[in-house]
Amino acid sequence: MSKKVVVVGAVAAGPKAACRLKRLRPDWDITMIDQDSLISYGGCGIPYYVSGDVSDESELRETSFHVVRDTDFFLHSKGVRVLTRTRALAIDRGKKTVTVRNLDTEVEQQLSYDYLMLATGARPFELPIPGVKLDGVFAIADLHKAIEIKQRIAEGRVSRAVVIGGGAIGIEMAEALTDLWGVETTLLELAPQLLPKLVDRHFAEMLKNHLVEQKVAVYTSESAVKLLDNGHGCVCGVKTGQRTLEADLVIMAVGVRPRSELARDAGLDVAAWGGIKVNQRLQTSDPFIYAAGDCIAVNHLVTGRETFAPLGSLANREGRVVGDNMAGYPSVFKGVCGSFIMKAFERCIGSTGLTWEAALAEGFDADYALTSPPDRAHFFPGQAVVILQLVFDRRSRRVLGLQAFGMMNDSVSARVDAAAALISQEGTIEDFGLLEMAYAPPFSSAIDSINAAAYMAENMCENRLHRVDHTRFLAWLDDESIEPDWMVLDVRHPLEAAPCIEKFGAHRWVGLEYGQVRQRYQELPTDKTYVIFCNAGTRSYEVQLFLDHIGSYTTMVLCGGTNLISRLKPDWMDGK
Amino acid sequence: MSKKVVVVGAVAAGPKAACRLKRLRPDWDITMIDQDSLISYGGCGIPYYVSGDVSDESELRETSFHVVRDTDFFLHSKGVRVLTRTRALAIDRGKKTVTVRNLDTEVEQQLSYDYLMLATGARPFELPIPGVKLDGVFAIADLHKAIEIKQRIAEGRVSRAVVIGGGAIGIEMAEALTDLWGVETTLLELAPQLLPKLVDRHFAEMLKNHLVEQKVAVYTSESAVKLLDNGHGCVCGVKTGQRTLEADLVIMAVGVRPRSELARDAGLDVAAWGGIKVNQRLQTSDPFIYAAGDCIAVNHLVTGRETFAPLGSLANREGRVVGDNMAGYPSVFKGVCGSFIMKAFERCIGSTGLTWEAALAEGFDADYALTSPPDRAHFFPGQAVVILQLVFDRRSRRVLGLQAFGMMNDSVSARVDAAAALISQEGTIEDFGLLEMAYAPPFSSAIDSINAAAYMAENMCENRLHRVDHTRFLAWLDDESIEPDWMVLDVRHPLEAAPCIEKFGAHRWVGLEYGQVRQRYQELPTDKTYVIFCNAGTRSYEVQLFLDHIGSYTTMVLCGGTNLISRLKPDWMDGK
Repeated sequence: MSKKVVVVGAVAAGPKAACRLKRLRPDWDITMIDQDSLISYGGCGIPYYVSGDVSDESELRETSFHVVRDTDFFLHSKGVRVLTRTRALAIDRGKKTVTVRNLDTEVEQQLSYDYLMLATGARPFELPIPGVKLDGVFAIADLHKAIEIKQRIAEGRVSRAVVIGGGAIGIEMAEALTDLWGVETTLLELAPQLLPKLVDRHFAEMLKNHLVEQKVAVYTSESAVKLLDNGHGCVCGVKTGQRTLEADLVIMAVGVRPRSELARDAGLDVAAWGGIKVNQRLQTSDPFIYAAGDCIAVNHLVTGRETFAPLGSLANREGRVVGDNMAGYPSVFKGVCGSFIMKAFERCIGSTGLTWEAALAEGFDADYALTSPPDRAHFFPGQAVVILQLVFDRRSRRVLGLQAFGMMNDSVSARVDAAAALISQEGTIEDFGLLEMAYAPPFSSAIDSINAAAYMAENMCENRLHRVDHTRFLAWLDDESIEPDWMVLDVRHPLEAAPCIEKFGAHRWVGLEYGQVRQRYQELPTDKTYVIFCNAGTRSYEVQLFLDHIGSYTTMVLCGGTNLISRLKPDWMDGK
Repeated sequence: MSKKVVVVGAVAAGPKAACRLKRLRPDWDITMIDQDSLISYGGCGIPYYVSGDVSDESELRETSFHVVRDTDFFLHSKGVRVLTRTRALAIDRGKKTVTVRNLDTEVEQQLSYDYLMLATGARPFELPIPGVKLDGVFAIADLHKAIEIKQRIAEGRVSRAVVIGGGAIGIEMAEALTDLWGVETTLLELAPQLLPKLVDRHFAEMLKNHLVEQKVAVYTSESAVKLLDNGHGCVCGVKTGQRTLEADLVIMAVGVRPRSELARDAGLDVAAWGGIKVNQRLQTSDPFIYAAGDCIAVNHLVTGRETFAPLGSLANREGRVVGDNMAGYPSVFKGVCGSFIMKAFERCIGSTGLTWEAALAEGFDADYALTSPPDRAHFFPGQAVVILQLVFDRRSRRVLGLQAFGMMNDSVSARVDAAAALISQEGTIEDFGLLEMAYAPPFSSAIDSINAAAYMAENMCENRLHRVDHTRFLAWLDDESIEPDWMVLDVRHPLEAAPCIEKFGAHRWVGLEYGQVRQRYQELPTDKTYVIFCNAGTRSYEVQLFLDHIGSYTTMVLCGGTNLISRLKPDWMDGK
């Protein structure tokens, strides 16, 4: 009953499937092939290798018990044969064979299979601009490129770098270059924001401000149009629509595309954008051929539509499902929430589910609750503000997503993971309000930030809380003529309100401390629209409810308060 | 339509309910009473106030915007009247009145209500032993006691302390005394383990070892039988069944009991153990009387039975539900998973759901998967081992609980919170295997520890993984005659195995490196029972599967490996 299995691709999904299958079916014959010589590495660790946090590339290929995962390791420890430097050229589905070629010897052979797995991964997108082949221009395609980049830096050949692409990898690379090597680094992003599609605009803006604070030059809505040659075939700069940047190193991190030519050529169903189509058991349109990892289209648990989720963690989970199903143990991969997290210097940013913009685009009746509470008990030393946003559907009250921006610790991780767990179960605002976050002052607040965000969402659904869009508010700060009837009602301590009153003028900014609103609200003219303002938005909401009850006032709450504004516009109170 | 509401108790649940209700019904008349003069404080912060992490007690009574929550605050900021130093004596449910007495003036009055809320909290249990009234003996009953304790320490009057009770508060107090004040501290716990019912025995043991390492003397299975008088009415020591301990400060932290006399006297349903019975809307057996916080019996989401969960975080969530329901917005508090987390010096320990022991006692077909992976990518600087245990029901495959012991950061929090989210939705092992933990090397592993634990649980349900109980293994390490046929098969690197072979003898400990098992397994005699041993248990499991496939070997895996053993028995490899 022994069967033959061929796995194409030996980085994450492939090895996981092959090893799981070999454990379940020890007498099966499993061959894994990869066109690279280096296999089974933690690609997500590349920025940390380049930065020097991880000193040797082999650490990214090691098990936790410090054995390098090479062909010998797979053969002797796992019982899986690996052919490296071997490319799969074609699949004959009728004969159940794969033609492969050794890239060193150029010898071709046919491998027969009972089951085939495609774990061909993704390839970095290459910009269609002049100069991308110049020396000194890199995509983070594999470990070899990372080794070369690090070598150049270590040799002192890099003093100015341009990173093209403001996604997670681009930002991580910008940090690696700046923080540990002191390379003068510029980050370019074509979209109007960093981390497009992963977080909403204001989260990207806060992150951008932190990067700038850390000496990374960041230009959004700006694309490279040409990479410049120093006359000797080496890159010496980047020309954008707006400027020319000197650079002796250019990193292109403009996203990846599924490697699905093999599947398409074999007549398997492939999405127009390149993802190999699979069912929940990760079978392609040919039930004897499975696919997993960065080359497939997966189900999005919130939209119910196919999506692209190239992440090592998902590849591993998917790989295990493939191993199970091949072995005859039916198992499913239900889909993804799209969880994302990253370190950026001294901050952490994370998200799961849909952003507000994405949710609107999907047709949800989407809104968001934005809070800026402390990341643990407000009296505990070292607590810091976290900006947290819950995206929800007003009609169904289903929670669609969560985003968080806080200090570099695991507290964002805790909220994002708990949220993903509930979102995957179609959790509602009420479920989030009841979510039992483990409480002790060093870790959380008695009312955890995630519960508080759910409470706010509920108050919005019930039309108790009316918020003002912070973009509109910021525009008005710059130009009062935009909303001539507006006035800020600052309910913070008078000493906190005073500088704002001075800067923006008493006709635009009035202070009335939270604790005095009930006694003194009659002092407020009723012909204004008040933007109620405090540190986090919580007091503002209470004041809004009270003034609504009085009945003669038009009010809006600036959710997130100064905590948000100072992160969006760090210089908003500078000068006059 | 304005109604009168009386809230008895003004610490956590009471204020939350009162303020929420006032926001929803601004014209209602709300009175909160409390027998204490200090109200609305973060009682969970007391140990951090005593340690000095929180410098002034008022910080525990402040809002996050630094305003003290006193009667003025509630009146002017919240519109809620508070009568402090006022005790509720009796409820007349027919007339809908509460008789209250001012403890200073002794004046009594009747407060009439449309709705009444009981948020009477819990009182510390007082040990029924001689000497508990001596000067220098404290229970952590309220802020006043905490202030007095800190004053004594600050005045240099405390050099030796005994903390009676090894629950969370006792341990936090022991840390506060030892770590920052250098007080020689002994911790006594009557049960055979610390944190009884909150974690399983081996988790408590790892914690105990850390406390001892941090210079806290810990005695379990040992109770105080008498507190000793120095002849002047001051405590000078604690006598236990086994020894006499000198002490100029004794802290009793032996648990709390619901304060439910008022409810019982009014004829409301009260559980035999003291918890006030409520429905999901938190109404008592009288629908006009609600109850919340430490005085009630809540539903346990795993057992479906009533439980006692005195925690400030739950009190707040419950209080909001009371406010909603009184206001006429039906809302439910479904119950608790029993999440718990605490800092203990440089470690963090947390749990949610049922322990293994509790699950067995509840009649589940309970087992547990125990892992000891790194708390983030194993190549990321600063990563450290976390011991993680998933408790599950073999029959239904439902996950019943999770426990974790790791370094003092938020990574345990992330796993416990995500687990609680899924457990509350009756998540299965499969759900935990697919749980989407946000991945980047600074925060997690490509296969997150919680996924890995779920995979292990599945392998146990499928009878692929056979584990040995570590208690049996540790006993055998001490006395080989217990299991004469046993032998350790150490699959770690030969340099790691060598000291064990030397210490325990070649007849008990054989080394065969993981990577060589497939080639050299024939060297192993087949008449032994092998305990397969590695760092974490992962390699051991793979070797077990392989040897099972060969068929002539009897094997068991020591889950958690050296990572577990070295935390359970820090001296296991010392000496010969």
